[in-house]
Amino acid sequence: MGDGARVVVDFRTDPSRYKHWKLSFDGPVATLHMDVREDGGLVPGYELKLNSYDLGVDIELYDAIQRLRFEHPEVGAVVLTSGKERIFCAGANIRMLSQSSHGWKVNFCKFTNETRSAIEDATASSRQAWLAAVNGPCAGGGYELALATDWIIMSDDGSTTVALPEVPLLAVLPGTGGLTRLVDKRRVRRDRADFFCTLEEGIKGQRAVEWRLVDEVVPRSRLAEATKARAAGLAARTDRPAGARGISLAPLERRVEGDRVAYTHVACAIDRGRGVAEITVAAPTTPPPADPAAIHAAGAGFWPLAVARELDDLILHLRANEEEIGLWVLRTSGAADLVEAHDRALAQHEADWLVREIRLYWKRTLKRLDVSSRSIFALIEPGSCFAGTLLELALAADRTFMLDGRREGDARPPAGLRLTGMNFGPYPTVNGLTRLASRFLDEPGRVDDLKGRIGEDLDAAAAAEAGLVTFTPDDIDWEDEVRIAIEERAAFSPDALTGMEASLRFGGRPNAVGPKGALKVYGTGERGDFDRRRV
Amino acid sequence: MGDGARVVVDFRTDPSRYKHWKLSFDGPVATLHMDVREDGGLVPGYELKLNSYDLGVDIELYDAIQRLRFEHPEVGAVVLTSGKERIFCAGANIRMLSQSSHGWKVNFCKFTNETRSAIEDATASSRQAWLAAVNGPCAGGGYELALATDWIIMSDDGSTTVALPEVPLLAVLPGTGGLTRLVDKRRVRRDRADFFCTLEEGIKGQRAVEWRLVDEVVPRSRLAEATKARAAGLAARTDRPAGARGISLAPLERRVEGDRVAYTHVACAIDRGRGVAEITVAAPTTPPPADPAAIHAAGAGFWPLAVARELDDLILHLRANEEEIGLWVLRTSGAADLVEAHDRALAQHEADWLVREIRLYWKRTLKRLDVSSRSIFALIEPGSCFAGTLLELALAADRTFMLDGRREGDARPPAGLRLTGMNFGPYPTVNGLTRLASRFLDEPGRVDDLKGRIGEDLDAAAAAEAGLVTFTPDDIDWEDEVRIAIEERAAFSPDALTGMEASLRFGGRPNAVGPKGALKVYGTGERGDFDRRRV
Repeated sequence: MGDGARVVVDFRTDPSRYKHWKLSFDGPVATLHMDVREDGGLVPGYELKLNSYDLGVDIELYDAIQRLRFEHPEVGAVVLTSGKERIFCAGANIRMLSQSSHGWKVNFCKFTNETRSAIEDATASSRQAWLAAVNGPCAGGGYELALATDWIIMSDDGSTTVALPEVPLLAVLPGTGGLTRLVDKRRVRRDRADFFCTLEEGIKGQRAVEWRLVDEVVPRSRLAEATKARAAGLAARTDRPAGARGISLAPLERRVEGDRVAYTHVACAIDRGRGVAEITVAAPTTPPPADPAAIHAAGAGFWPLAVARELDDLILHLRANEEEIGLWVLRTSGAADLVEAHDRALAQHEADWLVREIRLYWKRTLKRLDVSSRSIFALIEPGSCFAGTLLELALAADRTFMLDGRREGDARPPAGLRLTGMNFGPYPTVNGLTRLASRFLDEPGRVDDLKGRIGEDLDAAAAAEAGLVTFTPDDIDWEDEVRIAIEERAAFSPDALTGMEASLRFGGRPNAVGPKGALKVYGTGERGDFDRRRV
Repeated sequence: MGDGARVVVDFRTDPSRYKHWKLSFDGPVATLHMDVREDGGLVPGYELKLNSYDLGVDIELYDAIQRLRFEHPEVGAVVLTSGKERIFCAGANIRMLSQSSHGWKVNFCKFTNETRSAIEDATASSRQAWLAAVNGPCAGGGYELALATDWIIMSDDGSTTVALPEVPLLAVLPGTGGLTRLVDKRRVRRDRADFFCTLEEGIKGQRAVEWRLVDEVVPRSRLAEATKARAAGLAARTDRPAGARGISLAPLERRVEGDRVAYTHVACAIDRGRGVAEITVAAPTTPPPADPAAIHAAGAGFWPLAVARELDDLILHLRANEEEIGLWVLRTSGAADLVEAHDRALAQHEADWLVREIRLYWKRTLKRLDVSSRSIFALIEPGSCFAGTLLELALAADRTFMLDGRREGDARPPAGLRLTGMNFGPYPTVNGLTRLASRFLDEPGRVDDLKGRIGEDLDAAAAAEAGLVTFTPDDIDWEDEVRIAIEERAAFSPDALTGMEASLRFGGRPNAVGPKGALKVYGTGERGDFDRRRV
């Protein structure tokens, strides 16, 4: 979005409201037809021609991926294809990119990347295999979408090609993981990848197979049949029980009142003066259901699933709609015993397909938190419940403050931390390690020692000794120390913090977005006027 | 350097010309005192106060590292310390950065990073261990310099601290690998690293040891003695023979005539119109010396060492002084048999300390080529000698063109490629794999198959079949195909190419370098005026 009218993005949707996708089912095979409505853009100012997409299109795709996993356990393979006659997908809409701010573009690319990763996670972790049936030109973000699937079948006709034409056409890089997926995932030889990425027209037919750009080409007349056969083979590899029934992902309850956003278990208060979002996650108030059948019956109301959905939505909401809120302060409240009991249920029933999905959803949601370009502090105070899965929130934070002892006038016991089995494996970060292992790179033995302390209530002194928290001020120092840390953070440069926190770098590349950049002049007949200096 | 007068940077120097460093020897321990001359800046416009540095200071440091390895095999430990009373090193000079173009800064940071990596390579691969004796405040790039050593001893006094104050003071990130070395090399806990990197004043004394920021603190009065003891211990771990005598790195012969740069074995012709540097490396003209003693006698004249030095200097020259020349075209000429014979000498005598150094130098030089932000094409034509070590140049290229068959009117045999043992291990890229292994990620078995073809002359058809080249046009197509590829490359956006080629991203961060950015207003009393939006 540009600097004009502000659109508030809502990430909640459901199939009955899809504008751009058609989801259909044939036993164990689902088909997702991309059929983008030209006048259905999220923001005014562009038309979504040629199955090009904007954030709104991707929000629906993300919703479909989620529902397939939770609502359709009977599905073992998902075919991604185009609902249009002469085009698979032309990629992200260029006019939309051209009118968007740098922040909007980066946030858009981050979300589309995460959505592609969710497709890969479904294939790899849930045996719900995705394949792409490329039935027309497939360029840029369109090919990146196909790259997210594990099998690409392409029509062998005169016009169907795969292409990554960003560098020659737009002077930008493929923004949704295309280069990485080409070289690291599909292991295309680097000199061929170099050539391919400078070709406006892309590659078709047998050469695309030889170069590993697609897995299979078939005559257009045989595409449907070949896709069906391949999908049936992939679907047969499902490990979910026959007759498994999905749960319904009921609409998320969310109330926005002024600067407050409240869900059932998660609440957020925005302090615009200080640039802070104060986020509180509440513990369950009842014990977990007794067995998998009861968990299925609870469905979207089962506390771990409900909290994951609420946190996921809140993270997306804050990223897209509150870009000036640079610091997220995380708190928890409630009974650690009940959090721990729910973690035990997640551990005990991990073989159940729904429980597995919930654990995987938490994994993805915590990764989304990790890569959010916001500072994250966790505050651990009396009445909090940083246990197991919720302790991961503190371990994801840049810094943690834990109040040592009681507060004057507060009868509650001092704050404690509690480890559960969920801290030791199910939630790896993007580097493949658990947050505990990432924390103790210098002393891997500490992770083993901590395993012996599962279930123990660690007070501030014990938590500091164990290396689980950064600072442990007492009641006298707490307020000043936390206040100063928050004020200091707000005074630093946001992009220096982003780089520091994530060891990632973002920047406006003038040859693409400058006044004569290729992205701005695209389609005008003018050529980009490049600064030729290399750095 | 800014947009004003152009300084041509010369990377050649020797200890007799050092302005900023004093190198002294005490048996197996060398000491390098940093004593930067305030008025000795490479470019007008700033004073190098407080042992701050610019590219000129680092060029001398790089020269010292090289000479220690080749000229001083008797040295087993190198102490890096300050020659000034009250400061270790204040880091890169802020005024210099503030007046420099983005390209100059990136190139400066790249070179300083490579120089720090060369320190680490000396410690790890040559058992010439570096340690830092921190005898005064050590901030920013100063601490990054200390981080490159494997042991940091710090004076425990009122004023000596280590610090990375870039984020709070300048709104930039540490530019010479500080964040990575903190977390990945020294394995500082990430929440402590977060706090440390937001502290203007740094950390001193025992806390710096507890947080793993330094290895040892000693009272100022004992610093010299403790450093001496530690250095003696490290020096004793050398694996070079007692009485080893160094060779002399004689001044590099280089002639610059107009747009031509010529060394003894390497020549470069710059075509400004097309933005191309045509680089040719010549084979040796005589067989290699018969044994290690003869190699030592040949010294800097030994062909592999001579070529590595010339290529290294040329890469640095082109990077710093020819930033608009975006494409490097690599050729070789001469007898492949003689290249292969020299590779055999490098393999046969790898236990010899000097041969080991030459192999390591080639490893570093090829890595420097890999990370250069220029497009690289290799042209393999009749009369070329892409064998073994020189074949690595083609494997480092983004694309290779190999002429299939003879040229009309050219009696020479068709071009051939030749593998040697040097292609299978000694020259890993930054990812730790050989260039062949990186090339065949999809089929690791191909690398094993190729081992069986060492010494074979592979013509264009065989090279294409083996996957070693990208395109093999014949004489009829060659000229057009190569010309078009070069012209196309020149038409693409340089920074899109840089990102594509290196999967790295660079960019101007406005909060640091914009008109009110922290880097510009530093020292003026004004605060940076930040755009608060996060992306």
